[in-house]
Amino acid sequence: MTITAEAKPTIAWLGLGIMGQAMAANLLKSGHFAQLLVWNRSADKCDALVAAGAVAVGSPAEAVARADIVFGMLSDPKAALEVALGKDGVVSAIQPGKAYVDMSTVDEETSTQIAAAVRAAGGRFLEGPVSGSKKPAIDGQLIILAAGDESLFKDCAAAFDVMGKRSLFLGDVGAGARMKLVVNGTMGAIMTAFAEGMALADKSGLQQSDLLEVLGLGAMASPMIALKGPALVSRSYPPAFKLVSQQKDMRLVLALGDALDQPLPVMAAANEQFKKAKALGLGESDFAAVYEAAVHGAGGGSGGQA
Amino acid sequence: MTITAEAKPTIAWLGLGIMGQAMAANLLKSGHFAQLLVWNRSADKCDALVAAGAVAVGSPAEAVARADIVFGMLSDPKAALEVALGKDGVVSAIQPGKAYVDMSTVDEETSTQIAAAVRAAGGRFLEGPVSGSKKPAIDGQLIILAAGDESLFKDCAAAFDVMGKRSLFLGDVGAGARMKLVVNGTMGAIMTAFAEGMALADKSGLQQSDLLEVLGLGAMASPMIALKGPALVSRSYPPAFKLVSQQKDMRLVLALGDALDQPLPVMAAANEQFKKAKALGLGESDFAAVYEAAVHGAGGGSGGQA
Amino acid sequence: MTITAEAKPTIAWLGLGIMGQAMAANLLKSGHFAQLLVWNRSADKCDALVAAGAVAVGSPAEAVARADIVFGMLSDPKAALEVALGKDGVVSAIQPGKAYVDMSTVDEETSTQIAAAVRAAGGRFLEGPVSGSKKPAIDGQLIILAAGDESLFKDCAAAFDVMGKRSLFLGDVGAGARMKLVVNGTMGAIMTAFAEGMALADKSGLQQSDLLEVLGLGAMASPMIALKGPALVSRSYPPAFKLVSQQKDMRLVLALGDALDQPLPVMAAANEQFKKAKALGLGESDFAAVYEAAVHGAGGGSGGQA
Amino acid sequence: MTITAEAKPTIAWLGLGIMGQAMAANLLKSGHFAQLLVWNRSADKCDALVAAGAVAVGSPAEAVARADIVFGMLSDPKAALEVALGKDGVVSAIQPGKAYVDMSTVDEETSTQIAAAVRAAGGRFLEGPVSGSKKPAIDGQLIILAAGDESLFKDCAAAFDVMGKRSLFLGDVGAGARMKLVVNGTMGAIMTAFAEGMALADKSGLQQSDLLEVLGLGAMASPMIALKGPALVSRSYPPAFKLVSQQKDMRLVLALGDALDQPLPVMAAANEQFKKAKALGLGESDFAAVYEAAVHGAGGGSGGQA
Repeated sequence: MTITAEAKPTIAWLGLGIMGQAMAANLLKSGHFAQLLVWNRSADKCDALVAAGAVAVGSPAEAVARADIVFGMLSDPKAALEVALGKDGVVSAIQPGKAYVDMSTVDEETSTQIAAAVRAAGGRFLEGPVSGSKKPAIDGQLIILAAGDESLFKDCAAAFDVMGKRSLFLGDVGAGARMKLVVNGTMGAIMTAFAEGMALADKSGLQQSDLLEVLGLGAMASPMIALKGPALVSRSYPPAFKLVSQQKDMRLVLALGDALDQPLPVMAAANEQFKKAKALGLGESDFAAVYEAAVHGAGGGSGGQA
Repeated sequence: MTITAEAKPTIAWLGLGIMGQAMAANLLKSGHFAQLLVWNRSADKCDALVAAGAVAVGSPAEAVARADIVFGMLSDPKAALEVALGKDGVVSAIQPGKAYVDMSTVDEETSTQIAAAVRAAGGRFLEGPVSGSKKPAIDGQLIILAAGDESLFKDCAAAFDVMGKRSLFLGDVGAGARMKLVVNGTMGAIMTAFAEGMALADKSGLQQSDLLEVLGLGAMASPMIALKGPALVSRSYPPAFKLVSQQKDMRLVLALGDALDQPLPVMAAANEQFKKAKALGLGESDFAAVYEAAVHGAGGGSGGQA
Repeated sequence: MTITAEAKPTIAWLGLGIMGQAMAANLLKSGHFAQLLVWNRSADKCDALVAAGAVAVGSPAEAVARADIVFGMLSDPKAALEVALGKDGVVSAIQPGKAYVDMSTVDEETSTQIAAAVRAAGGRFLEGPVSGSKKPAIDGQLIILAAGDESLFKDCAAAFDVMGKRSLFLGDVGAGARMKLVVNGTMGAIMTAFAEGMALADKSGLQQSDLLEVLGLGAMASPMIALKGPALVSRSYPPAFKLVSQQKDMRLVLALGDALDQPLPVMAAANEQFKKAKALGLGESDFAAVYEAAVHGAGGGSGGQA
Repeated sequence: MTITAEAKPTIAWLGLGIMGQAMAANLLKSGHFAQLLVWNRSADKCDALVAAGAVAVGSPAEAVARADIVFGMLSDPKAALEVALGKDGVVSAIQPGKAYVDMSTVDEETSTQIAAAVRAAGGRFLEGPVSGSKKPAIDGQLIILAAGDESLFKDCAAAFDVMGKRSLFLGDVGAGARMKLVVNGTMGAIMTAFAEGMALADKSGLQQSDLLEVLGLGAMASPMIALKGPALVSRSYPPAFKLVSQQKDMRLVLALGDALDQPLPVMAAANEQFKKAKALGLGESDFAAVYEAAVHGAGGGSGGQA
């Protein structure tokens, strides 16, 4: 059943972490449904949405039983598997006509396993990991990397429009997970390259603010450099995307390259820096804290030594 | 003597390669001078500018003798040294009141050597390497990284406004050269990271066009990715910035890090890829051809193998 | 029951690949047992040992039922798990008094899983991966990296003496697997460093035979350099340890470093070269073929270009 | 004039640092000469050799004037150039019949420059950098990497036999310098790989002494691992070959690879670790202190964290 302002299907949302909360809130505001059911492992996280008009349910299975289309946004592959395949999980209630859209960021194997179970039970499946963190989620500006059943992708178009600025259908199940990894692996390497530039600027007696201005005016100008530059200058890293998550994605993208015999020497070098930053105790900081790996023990930092 | 529409000093331009030709042409159009003198080792490169109103002179020394402020834009450190310090070179005619602005991209040592000679003869010196290649030069959209005598930087403000969209004064002689290296080293590493992402997308069965769209919508969106992405897809690399020049800058930025004990593992890994691309015979291609190093022997390319 | 010439326990051997065949043959010659039972998935591989006095059995379970101590040497974690935990597997017949020594090279998780099952059934468990390939196996010159039940390690001392030149007891289950990975990860990086030196010697107009002589006389002289050097010169790589296995170990050692936040930038760079060599189709060659990754596309090789 | 017990030429030695002192002392003991002249910038370093029978001279020029063959062992390229080409230097006294053997470790350009000057003055030239540090120098166990005039190499055979266990003639001037770089670059990368293995052993709860035993028994066993292993365990690095010198050689070997378009990703990654160790203040420690770069900030060290 297509999600439209006219059709008004019942939809459900599983998982109300930072991202899920924001995405479900946008869906709720859209009015493109008869009812929005919500579920979270810790039930108290449902309160805000229920206060705004959503209806809490007791399990993923109940959500599937009552809704036409169910969205999931879980924190990691383990949680995604548990919600999908565990007791009273999604698959236990799937039957022909039901549809599950898993927007969690998981590895391809996890997604493939969930897809197989949903399809075996007669349902349709779509993976839809997103590119973007908290602020784009709140602003409905995510990029949705969908793959799986194309008819379900089409049915979700209006919902995706509410959550994101663009949704792409990438092919078979797994393609979304792979695209997410390629994007994040590239991002981790670019962030580390940028951090090295900033460290060297400081070490060589240049003003980092001058470097940021030059970069901002040139071919490398990007929202990431504009956003993370000041964090590096102040060496303060409130987490938008945690370093530990970025490092996990580096590990996974390297594993993907490994499986395909694709050398990725720059991403591999960047991963070692993320590992070092983790070892420095920065796992819960923003991934921009990889800068600390670049300057640690190198006499860098705002004081400079050049 | 400050360059202004009112003061109308006599200015001179030494070096009419691709960049110098475009920069001098913009100066000529500006009218901020009494006369624009031009000189090039191969005199025929002066013809177009002379036809447009410039006056050719016979040597750098003659340019200095007749002009208030002389600009140089030479192809490499060797040419910059020869024009500045050689027979009938800039320094042979410098005396108090004269000023030399060397906009060539040279290493810090070269710039320091030229500065010392100009100053010893009583002149003022400014280094002003630029960020940006042919098109920004033509469009007057360069970024000028100036360092040396600040009074001369101020005197050149109007000229820099004609050539660039922004000029920064970075400090003592050498700071411009270092900033240029830091920027280009960062650029080389980012380009290589991007190339790895594109190679892995293809190898893993994704459409590179989808990756480019995702990157273009997200935090990494940049003019460089927008511009070079299609080059990687088509594997065609008409040179805007030659790979051999980028690799030279990687070597120099690593030498700078080496001198300052600043580890740069990602830039170092990227440099090895540029070396590999050079060995593949791509030195004269655009630096985006580092993509070929990422896919060479990895079974990548548009056909994919996933 | 301790394996001694006097005690003469019944022992069993599971898995008769290249390594297992050689190790079991050495045991057979030792006479330190009442009977040597043998089993292999493809039963015909038992023929040679049976001809020499061993007794073939029909399943791992039968081997356990009839023997005091059972040794396993399987090709990979999947085979090790199947033989241990599968139908008619080792664990199905384990009871107090039985002992299983798994000498396969497996990851720590696999070994831990098998240990838990053997112990839960009342048996003793020892992991004993070996360092050394075909020739040391034949010559009884392996190094045995044992961990698990120390009493079982002691009981096997005479058997290990027959198979290896040294056996070490490293601690709890998993320590043997980790030691194997650390050793092989180090080996892969050293091999790649050596390959780079050989490639650069050739590229810079030196005789590789001169480099080998210099290395052989100095601090780096090692059996590996002595053995692999001529392979690199002739660019011929008959497999003693397959490149695909070495690359797998690089992947696993990096995963171990990843789990422990231990940066390993040199091993990571080496891994990318092994991946490249795999992509060049050299997976089934000896791991020394990583040299081809060093020279591929770099104009290297015996012809040189310097 | 060939150096033999019979011919007894007059020979001279320039440069009495740690290495030169030991090498000249071995020459002195050999008796293969009529007289051994010695010179050092700080004349007091001649005292011990003079007491043992050598004759001090006032300048390199005087040494050349009075000796048939002059050996130099200077600390770095700058000193080598000064002694060869400076006032009262070697070249000022060279004439047909004279010969200069420069055993300093210098870059190819420096050696080529000295060779050209010696030959232009009618003399013969040989470069002879050595592989091996203080102890092999004292024990007469160096490896001599000679290149230049082959007749001079032959004339020095007896002298080289006294100083080293092997001398190789590698070809034209520059080949000795290149071989030295290739050997040292390989050594630096192998040392760093070994350091990573030791760091990971500790981090993963293994005994480093067990790893050293395993390595010592296997294919990687080498004098370097035997010698440096205990230094890593005790984290004490009395200098046999200074880290700052090793890092300089890494820089030079990478520059050589750069000039020849030979990618050296593992050596490049190792160089970044040496740079990091230098930044940690370990430049004057033994090059084995690169281990500190592997464990710094990674929570490693003898206490372990696994």
